[in-house]
Amino acid sequence: MKAVEEYDFPRDLKGMSLHEKELLAVAIREFLIEHIAITGGHLASNLGIVELAIAIHSCFDVPKDKIIWDVGHQAYVHKILTGRARDFSGLRQLDGLSGFPSRKESPCDPFTTGHSSNSVSLMTGLCKARDLRGDHYEVAAVLGDGALTGGLAYEGMNNLGAMHSRSIIILNDNGMSIGRNTGAVSSHLAKLRTSAGYYHFKNRLKGAVGSVPVIGGNLLHGMEKIRDVAKYALLDGVLFEELGFTYLGPIDGHDIGELIRHLKMARSVDGPVVLHVRTTKGKGYKNAEENPDRFHGIGAFDPVTGHPKKPAETTYSQVFGQHLTEMAARDERILAITAAMRDGTGLTPFAKAFPKRFVDTGIAESHAATFAGGLAAGGGRPFVAIYSTFLQRAYDEIVTDVCLQDLPVCFCIDRAGVVGADGPTHHGILDISYLSSIPGLTLMAPADGRELTAMMDYALQSGHPTAIRYPKGAADNRVSTYEQRPALAEGAWILQEGEVMIWAAGSMTDTALAAAERLEDMGISCGVVDARFLAPFDAKTLLATAGTARLLVTLEDNVLRGGFGEACTACLAAHRMTVPVLSLGWPVRFIPQGSIDQLMEGYGLSPVKIAERIREELERTS
Amino acid sequence: MKAVEEYDFPRDLKGMSLHEKELLAVAIREFLIEHIAITGGHLASNLGIVELAIAIHSCFDVPKDKIIWDVGHQAYVHKILTGRARDFSGLRQLDGLSGFPSRKESPCDPFTTGHSSNSVSLMTGLCKARDLRGDHYEVAAVLGDGALTGGLAYEGMNNLGAMHSRSIIILNDNGMSIGRNTGAVSSHLAKLRTSAGYYHFKNRLKGAVGSVPVIGGNLLHGMEKIRDVAKYALLDGVLFEELGFTYLGPIDGHDIGELIRHLKMARSVDGPVVLHVRTTKGKGYKNAEENPDRFHGIGAFDPVTGHPKKPAETTYSQVFGQHLTEMAARDERILAITAAMRDGTGLTPFAKAFPKRFVDTGIAESHAATFAGGLAAGGGRPFVAIYSTFLQRAYDEIVTDVCLQDLPVCFCIDRAGVVGADGPTHHGILDISYLSSIPGLTLMAPADGRELTAMMDYALQSGHPTAIRYPKGAADNRVSTYEQRPALAEGAWILQEGEVMIWAAGSMTDTALAAAERLEDMGISCGVVDARFLAPFDAKTLLATAGTARLLVTLEDNVLRGGFGEACTACLAAHRMTVPVLSLGWPVRFIPQGSIDQLMEGYGLSPVKIAERIREELERTS
Repeated sequence: MKAVEEYDFPRDLKGMSLHEKELLAVAIREFLIEHIAITGGHLASNLGIVELAIAIHSCFDVPKDKIIWDVGHQAYVHKILTGRARDFSGLRQLDGLSGFPSRKESPCDPFTTGHSSNSVSLMTGLCKARDLRGDHYEVAAVLGDGALTGGLAYEGMNNLGAMHSRSIIILNDNGMSIGRNTGAVSSHLAKLRTSAGYYHFKNRLKGAVGSVPVIGGNLLHGMEKIRDVAKYALLDGVLFEELGFTYLGPIDGHDIGELIRHLKMARSVDGPVVLHVRTTKGKGYKNAEENPDRFHGIGAFDPVTGHPKKPAETTYSQVFGQHLTEMAARDERILAITAAMRDGTGLTPFAKAFPKRFVDTGIAESHAATFAGGLAAGGGRPFVAIYSTFLQRAYDEIVTDVCLQDLPVCFCIDRAGVVGADGPTHHGILDISYLSSIPGLTLMAPADGRELTAMMDYALQSGHPTAIRYPKGAADNRVSTYEQRPALAEGAWILQEGEVMIWAAGSMTDTALAAAERLEDMGISCGVVDARFLAPFDAKTLLATAGTARLLVTLEDNVLRGGFGEACTACLAAHRMTVPVLSLGWPVRFIPQGSIDQLMEGYGLSPVKIAERIREELERTS
Repeated sequence: MKAVEEYDFPRDLKGMSLHEKELLAVAIREFLIEHIAITGGHLASNLGIVELAIAIHSCFDVPKDKIIWDVGHQAYVHKILTGRARDFSGLRQLDGLSGFPSRKESPCDPFTTGHSSNSVSLMTGLCKARDLRGDHYEVAAVLGDGALTGGLAYEGMNNLGAMHSRSIIILNDNGMSIGRNTGAVSSHLAKLRTSAGYYHFKNRLKGAVGSVPVIGGNLLHGMEKIRDVAKYALLDGVLFEELGFTYLGPIDGHDIGELIRHLKMARSVDGPVVLHVRTTKGKGYKNAEENPDRFHGIGAFDPVTGHPKKPAETTYSQVFGQHLTEMAARDERILAITAAMRDGTGLTPFAKAFPKRFVDTGIAESHAATFAGGLAAGGGRPFVAIYSTFLQRAYDEIVTDVCLQDLPVCFCIDRAGVVGADGPTHHGILDISYLSSIPGLTLMAPADGRELTAMMDYALQSGHPTAIRYPKGAADNRVSTYEQRPALAEGAWILQEGEVMIWAAGSMTDTALAAAERLEDMGISCGVVDARFLAPFDAKTLLATAGTARLLVTLEDNVLRGGFGEACTACLAAHRMTVPVLSLGWPVRFIPQGSIDQLMEGYGLSPVKIAERIREELERTS
């Protein structure tokens, strides 16, 4: 058998026998483990859908037919089967293969994805456009059961189901999203998948009911609903049926023959279909099957032991989770809320210590925010931990259901700033812009882990809406070496004074200190201020430092438009301060994937680049 | 019988007989028609729930028990029954009674509402907080069938259903939201309400099934699901049952006795309940029953004829709807999408002319945006018309599913800026802030109706993501008197030059011209620029005009933080332009209700106030 890279996919797949496809599945699993052990990436979910991806590409012709992978971290096998196996050594690296479907990368990826639950709506749009134009192609979406907890998926199904357009939703049910599924729909699915033989039993039953008027007699006489009764009796997928879909399944998602048979059956239906497929996350790799959460998205690891190669450092997420658990021990009003990011946000210890005060809403950020508003109105003090990029889903709910009500909810925004390998769908570089203009919200950013805990205490005590943004990565840095620090309530923290003053947002304070060191070497004295409060910010201290500086620099891990730098600049302009201002941050562009250091360097935000830029600016203005 | 204002509600309701309550319903209807004919407001939805509100306040004790009115425009009767009848002459006016529930106004309003579909999530939070604290009160939410088309309601139900907490969702089903409901869930409800006597029939049937093993025989032998079969046969509310709710109904929502009986039944269930109530929008007032859309939200009208008192003027919405219809006649790729705002956004003519190319998604803004992304990817050219405040729900989808994909979707943002009487939940003064930082999106604002049509043409031709924001109200103004105007592609339009230069965003150009007139009277020459493009904006022209001006003024109908003025200020600072800048817009505060003119005057944005402020500023800087 050839190596996976040597095939000419998708063409070579068409001529394969079922047995050859089964062997291919084995080879692809080995390929995935081997490559991801080196590059890191999403392993468990891709191991779970190897047979499914093979079956899909056996039944559809891409790029003519459109396959949408919801979220998209499970699209590695799809990439292999569409001729991208050779690029896997560059997976998730600068200028390399994306870890998600990407329109730029291949015509076989109809959309660049990364956020959950949008595939049904995208599919609804494609189907409507296709039908109007009279085009002929198939549209299928592969949706995890976790994605069904998102309201967007429901809005999409509600519309697609009513549109009666040809389309296939493949529900990849592995009983978990990033963390654990919660909610009623999750129970519904659990019920469906309890018995493996049930579907076959139902099929037989269906035949019988179709031919004989079995359910009858006096009871139902006059009730012209015999067919419906039969349907409800026979189809447990009633939730999907009621939404207008033909429901097929559940079937074994690791049986290529069964998958192909059912995909063909699904194609034969002239309307929307849900094909329910049961898979095992991490399938075929013992370490991942046993720890699917840990192997969801991972760094490089030892393929034999499954242990990570990089030693762990204490992250902001861990500091957050540990401190919140300590706070909760002292204050029983505290609750922790997340939206399918329990492990990622560091809340696992909290969930264990206070199971009743921990709520994972599923992939439902909008609900999480509004739910927190309700909790706070009822006397609770919720801390809502969500990644910056996903919190975008809750924008209106933060405005309307928390801030307008002036309720004491604290949004703990993990993964703020660029996140590295996950790329443009996952960078959290918009949150300062979308949060700063919300009335009544106090937005903070800690310079290190210790400041994060102080901000959490501040949030609890404030009694009003608050948000704290902090990045991926280590919570200890240059700032952590400062033992003495002014109380948070005093506002911005001037770490050092200088002719140039850098006002840094959050963890960029560390970068500012490093840049200041380089400037000192060049003979330029450079002060550093940890802004702490981004909105409303400490205008008084800003105006005071600006009065004496030759150059004021703002530094943030956010786009410049609407960011912290603009707020400072506007404040100085309004007070007719004429000090030159240099604002550093991300341009209004989608930032690609790459290591965080590479991206910072590439966009002029590394200490070296910042120091150079400041020196140039001083030359220009003097 | 006493006048409605003379009762001491809610206390007086408790002693009333059923007959007295029925008489009260008649009196409340008269009260509503009489008052709303003068003040304007939401008439049809309130006429539809008179009996329901009376029944609710007969069964619950506010403020101890919490009643959440989803959206909240149907809370007038609740206000009357909680002691606010005397304040109705000030309804929706400056410093007067809010048209929505308001935490500030009454302890009987647990939340300030205005956006749809959030009540279930708020209720879930309240219930969880109550259960944790061991508090004892009931929580009920009144949800229209339209609100069920929103994904947030589904996320809430998915979580509440799994939580098994005491709670009552009262589904007020009148078969319509603001426009017409669409989608599969809507069909599901339609099926439920088809037969008035059906519920009684089911109740009899249920008794029979409970006592006799009716459905049996060989067919179902071995299938331990007889109870489920019976349930599906008997309960059409299977969608709700599957989500974990006990379903009751549908019942007649105009029969107070029946309503009270069922509310008591709902209270007796120790878990989440859906009570399905059928009502008629506009009930009891012929004009409103026949035209519920027109009497949804209205201005003052003649109570006898039902005709509006104020003569109609051509609005931006009308210009938009008419021009899009004309464009669509020439270009068959064009589609119009809205989210339950067909009439409000002016799309009724389009929907009639091109029914297949018009899609109303229901109250599902998130889906609408992502769906449009799918349409564009399939070759369509969608124009998505949504009010500014509701578009907040689609923030992430605009970023991720449209702009990241670089797809030619045009968001047509109606009701941008303050909207007047609907107040803080409906003002659209955040959109410049939340849209300007999105990479790849071109944001425009027309100064009059003619410019709106030019921008729509521009959007179609651009082939990239675009957004156009325009306000409520008349599309003709001072700018419309300018016959000659430079092509849109040339960038900002300098209407007149002066020592002061006002850069105005969109319809504020009209205000700027009026302010300039006043300044000329004071001997100050004032130029006016219609910015046209807000993001990215015309920096070249800005820098050119700033080079010669004594004072540069920015003027926008948006909050200052993250707004157009900050973008201009940052641009000038980056180019080391030292011209003084005065930025005018809304402070970062929730702006109250009041007429648009009153609000503008009160916040210094009327022509008189602007002219004064500029004069002061010139004195200060010279």
